[in-house]
Amino acid sequence: MKKIGIVGGTAWLSTVDYYTAICRMSEQFHAAQNRKGPLPTPEMSIESLDLKKAVSYIGTQGDEGSWRLFDAYHRDALRRLEANGVDVAIMASNTPHHRFEAITRGIGIPVISIFEAVAKECARIGIERLLIVGTALTMDARTMCEVFATYGVDAFTPRTDEEKASVIAVIADVQCGMLHGAAERINNIAKTSFGRESQGRPVVCLACTELPCAFPAMKGSLSLQFLGGIEA
Amino acid sequence: MKKIGIVGGTAWLSTVDYYTAICRMSEQFHAAQNRKGPLPTPEMSIESLDLKKAVSYIGTQGDEGSWRLFDAYHRDALRRLEANGVDVAIMASNTPHHRFEAITRGIGIPVISIFEAVAKECARIGIERLLIVGTALTMDARTMCEVFATYGVDAFTPRTDEEKASVIAVIADVQCGMLHGAAERINNIAKTSFGRESQGRPVVCLACTELPCAFPAMKGSLSLQFLGGIEA
Repeated sequence: MKKIGIVGGTAWLSTVDYYTAICRMSEQFHAAQNRKGPLPTPEMSIESLDLKKAVSYIGTQGDEGSWRLFDAYHRDALRRLEANGVDVAIMASNTPHHRFEAITRGIGIPVISIFEAVAKECARIGIERLLIVGTALTMDARTMCEVFATYGVDAFTPRTDEEKASVIAVIADVQCGMLHGAAERINNIAKTSFGRESQGRPVVCLACTELPCAFPAMKGSLSLQFLGGIEA
Repeated sequence: MKKIGIVGGTAWLSTVDYYTAICRMSEQFHAAQNRKGPLPTPEMSIESLDLKKAVSYIGTQGDEGSWRLFDAYHRDALRRLEANGVDVAIMASNTPHHRFEAITRGIGIPVISIFEAVAKECARIGIERLLIVGTALTMDARTMCEVFATYGVDAFTPRTDEEKASVIAVIADVQCGMLHGAAERINNIAKTSFGRESQGRPVVCLACTELPCAFPAMKGSLSLQFLGGIEA
């Protein structure tokens, strides 16, 4: 089996989700082949970063130089994974994907982009239009929408500052463990934001580490990101 | 903060427990100091091994040479953690602790022994006698009991082959997710085994990765191992 590397810790809860999902998928794969005894799991390396440090290194959009520390912090983690014999790596967080090219420059192993993986999966299951909710960076930068566009998926973010502020407020609450009502608030934003741009059942990408925690029933989904049609 | 290393994957569920406990303790520590914003977590490296491979490398008690592959598999993981800048490491599994000295030979960073940590904690909270239940290796080898003895704790394992077989059967069931009745079966073994050697409320060390899963209410305990007085 190939050795898998994860740049994690930002935040640690999603690192647990990724690691757990990979181990469970491996066990299910081998159990389905009627293997007996302890089931194999792939060897893995996880470099868990300090969320506070990573956030303090976040730069300013359009100011390339301001991202120097952020890029280096993640690139160095990928370098350590590479030195550890990892064959393929992921970053278990959305934010560094806005700096994907800069971070992965010079890395000698393939790094799977969450944006690419989710966009590809959306195209495969026939999603045409999609609302992206996430941090201010994710909603303001065009990076994620542009990746979706290359797969023929029309992705958009909440149009108004008020809607964006509501999403950011939900994320802050979920980060503090205040899950009550979070799903309903995201549902309401989805109805308004999606309804303005498209018809039918809203399709929403929860493009932030913490947001899937508001939808515990979706936990254990095999998608790299939790993606769902929310009942309007 | 010091960088923490974990040799994990054997099994992966306890790696999740260790990683989660360390992250939560760090968050609680910083939250108690009224820190705002994203709370710091220590940087960590995890080397997650393949359980099937590790189990296949288990040797025979008394035959030093038969442990060569097992020792090397774990030592190499510790070496990678050391090369990654880890300041202090743990192995999130009981079995390699039976080979602690051989595995840690030549490693330049401190490795915390689970056996030492649990024995020290038992002595601190005034436990005098303790039943250890775990895999065949843990119950047959004297390693763990000897470490407890150095801290003045009289640790013993089930006396009869029938009791040992019952513990091993519970572990096999819990590994397959069959949790129903597992706690009661361990309770019964504890009553008989402990009652033969000592008086009062049985004190049991669940010295196997999977056993704490049978006692979900004890999850999130800050002890390195889940240790409890079980109601007789």
